[in-house]
Amino acid sequence: MAEEKLTTRSEDFSEWYNQIVLKAEMADYAPVRGCMVVRPYGWALWENIVSALDKEFKATGHVNAAFPTLIPMSFFEKEKEHVEGFAPELAVVTHGGGEKLEEPLVVRPTSETIIGYMYSKWVKSWRDLPILIVQWGSVLRWEMRTKLFLRTSEFYWHEGHTAHATKDEALEEMYRILDIYENFAVNEAALPVIKGRKSDTEKFAGAQITTSIECMMQDKRALQSGTSHYFGQNFAKAFDIQYLDTNNTLQFCETTSWAISSRIIGAIIMTHGDDQGLVLPPRLAPIQAVIVPIYKNDAEKSKVMETANRIFAELKAAGIRLKMDDRDNVSSGFKFNDWEMRGVPVRVEIGPRDVEKGSVALARRDRPGKEGKSFVPQTNLAAAVSGLLVEIQSALLARATAFRDANIHEPKDYEELKQVVQDGWAFSYWCGSKECEARVKEDTKATTRNIPLDQPKGEARCIVCGEKAAQKVYFAKAY
Amino acid sequence: MAEEKLTTRSEDFSEWYNQIVLKAEMADYAPVRGCMVVRPYGWALWENIVSALDKEFKATGHVNAAFPTLIPMSFFEKEKEHVEGFAPELAVVTHGGGEKLEEPLVVRPTSETIIGYMYSKWVKSWRDLPILIVQWGSVLRWEMRTKLFLRTSEFYWHEGHTAHATKDEALEEMYRILDIYENFAVNEAALPVIKGRKSDTEKFAGAQITTSIECMMQDKRALQSGTSHYFGQNFAKAFDIQYLDTNNTLQFCETTSWAISSRIIGAIIMTHGDDQGLVLPPRLAPIQAVIVPIYKNDAEKSKVMETANRIFAELKAAGIRLKMDDRDNVSSGFKFNDWEMRGVPVRVEIGPRDVEKGSVALARRDRPGKEGKSFVPQTNLAAAVSGLLVEIQSALLARATAFRDANIHEPKDYEELKQVVQDGWAFSYWCGSKECEARVKEDTKATTRNIPLDQPKGEARCIVCGEKAAQKVYFAKAY
Repeated sequence: MAEEKLTTRSEDFSEWYNQIVLKAEMADYAPVRGCMVVRPYGWALWENIVSALDKEFKATGHVNAAFPTLIPMSFFEKEKEHVEGFAPELAVVTHGGGEKLEEPLVVRPTSETIIGYMYSKWVKSWRDLPILIVQWGSVLRWEMRTKLFLRTSEFYWHEGHTAHATKDEALEEMYRILDIYENFAVNEAALPVIKGRKSDTEKFAGAQITTSIECMMQDKRALQSGTSHYFGQNFAKAFDIQYLDTNNTLQFCETTSWAISSRIIGAIIMTHGDDQGLVLPPRLAPIQAVIVPIYKNDAEKSKVMETANRIFAELKAAGIRLKMDDRDNVSSGFKFNDWEMRGVPVRVEIGPRDVEKGSVALARRDRPGKEGKSFVPQTNLAAAVSGLLVEIQSALLARATAFRDANIHEPKDYEELKQVVQDGWAFSYWCGSKECEARVKEDTKATTRNIPLDQPKGEARCIVCGEKAAQKVYFAKAY
Repeated sequence: MAEEKLTTRSEDFSEWYNQIVLKAEMADYAPVRGCMVVRPYGWALWENIVSALDKEFKATGHVNAAFPTLIPMSFFEKEKEHVEGFAPELAVVTHGGGEKLEEPLVVRPTSETIIGYMYSKWVKSWRDLPILIVQWGSVLRWEMRTKLFLRTSEFYWHEGHTAHATKDEALEEMYRILDIYENFAVNEAALPVIKGRKSDTEKFAGAQITTSIECMMQDKRALQSGTSHYFGQNFAKAFDIQYLDTNNTLQFCETTSWAISSRIIGAIIMTHGDDQGLVLPPRLAPIQAVIVPIYKNDAEKSKVMETANRIFAELKAAGIRLKMDDRDNVSSGFKFNDWEMRGVPVRVEIGPRDVEKGSVALARRDRPGKEGKSFVPQTNLAAAVSGLLVEIQSALLARATAFRDANIHEPKDYEELKQVVQDGWAFSYWCGSKECEARVKEDTKATTRNIPLDQPKGEARCIVCGEKAAQKVYFAKAY
């Protein structure tokens, strides 16, 4: 319950975020270092995210499966860069069934290794390819500083792992998934993400190419919201994933992996939330509309509830995800604040005068106060609410896109770059060297986010060193 | 692919089971002791199970959430019976992030403890009750002997955890869930389960009452297929889950927990499977019908495929889960065997003569060979296939029920009981003492399965000791 006033974004953005997560009952701190509990309201949002993505994966020929949570430590050592990347973050099981284990097991931080091992058993011929498997579950990477949804030791995600006969097919898969991620982010979560390729410094441990979608939060920091990797034959060689091609010759597979995690809930909160609390995009909101009946006495109550129940049935039948707030122990004002905190897109208010006039008041969450309130007839209310949900969905995307575009700068020189990344993103030519990337990071704490796939023609000079540069990159401070 | 002949049930039931799981590509052994990989076909079946149960839970007011995979060891020590029951089965994380942990963490074998801890934070007043949370995921209990789906260290399940104000409400919840389990088993999985209360010896570690659904496999052994527990205030006291009642007095909650695991896939295989392979109940089958086009040359192929594609579209539009097997590298006979191995309920065969005559052949999986084959017109085929799926679903239940009833005996004395439990179940009066239960187990390896909720009136004599007995119980060898 939202009794105390929320810290505002301008007062303390980080504290505002923490309070929303707790007050909207999205998640809670667990009594295990670095871990969170995802509460029912947060999990209902995650279920809608899962369902939207799962549908797209299945429509593109992917299937789900489940691999063990525990992975033998030796598996990690088979791919050099992979083990270097993950070794410091591992949780290690040393005892099982009352005895010390001969070989320690790791709680999976990601599953390329064990899935690669199984693929080497399953793949014999080109007819077995491609394998397109997705695993939904949680993974664990040791964290000392917890930030709910954004940085926790255990987090929830899917991990796609695919094996292909050729490089072209594997690259095509990597980009197909990146497109699915972009479509999901833009059309379901109303997040105006930018897709591109990560620099070598920022890519996944063991990948040849990492691509990502990146999103700007309201504090102008970037949040990497999904990644899709191409491994070449790195993992195929480490785990001996080979197939007989049509000429009966043994070939190594080409593999990919990709993921969106529960972090994206953090992106949704920090992109759309306001000083009243959470603002959820209608397509993913667990509750799309809440009905608040308003009355002062029993006579009014019976009249109002009759109408409210009828409207509830009508909206429900229209497929709107709906809640009736008929609590008797709190005021209407309390209810308004409570559902605003939880980010429910539309509030339907019904009082005695509405019953008489055959109308209701609709309040849209993305525009709090009078500006977002309208009075509409009860007739055809389901169509009106459905239409409003569509309108809110696109208004959220438009607002976030405008905000993003207003805060991406193209600095004329390095001095200006150092300024703009303090409170925005820089989009600049970069020579591609690790040295220039490191210098920006040292001078400003900003890192390269990604190199967008669509690049301007021609070349120019690196904003850092002045050498020739063929590509533009986003520099920003990131979560 | 099902090249080699399946061992028959009468030759070696256990080996028959193992082969089906592997040949039908339901699951595979993992390179981690005691663990399995659930392959896409097995996982698709599990997803249908999850979806059917999740719908019922949500319809009865339950919500999903997620709690950490790792639990502090000290949590287990707060409930004495619970830790005694689970200590020998724990996998223990001793190192995290490169350092030895101050307190070891346990990979959850079940989550009463950590969920109880969170409930104590969340519950303040009677208005916060009941809490009705379900967690879908996996748990780990160390196993040395692996049997895919039936006995693995890691397995998949849901665990429901509820907290209530009164004992009556908690008991009502336990029985409500048991009814949901029974309905699911009978109506979705075609498993004729028996619901009842477990003996004190067989109940869950820490529970006051454990109830279960029990199912007879084709080797006449029993398989516990779901459990629902009442804890009284045991866990509420261990974790301090208290609420202020309407008189503003602090009270301990009453709690329940309950689960169905991926074991139920083992029950489905061993109840319905035959010597050709898996037989899946249509309501849960990932593929309900497979279309096999039959042709000898390109001219026939183009004619047959035109009809096959049209029928595919029609059946798909009718909501039938469908597969077109248009592989060119294997024979029709191979395809028939392959889909029989995978238990697909209906096969639609279309050859050149069918195209001419406007008919197709339908083969039902539950009756292999000519007996289960019929020739039907292409007109209204979707209705015919849908009707056949319903018929197969009820035929499977009827067959399993008849088998079960034919193998439940009511022995007249203890000597006969010792005989019948070698190849069936005994349903007998029992005085309720641990001594008699232990004697049966020692003499026969049979254990008490459950005490059915509906009991005959009156009392009789215990089949073991001859003392007064007020209840009948099932004795059987069990998985």
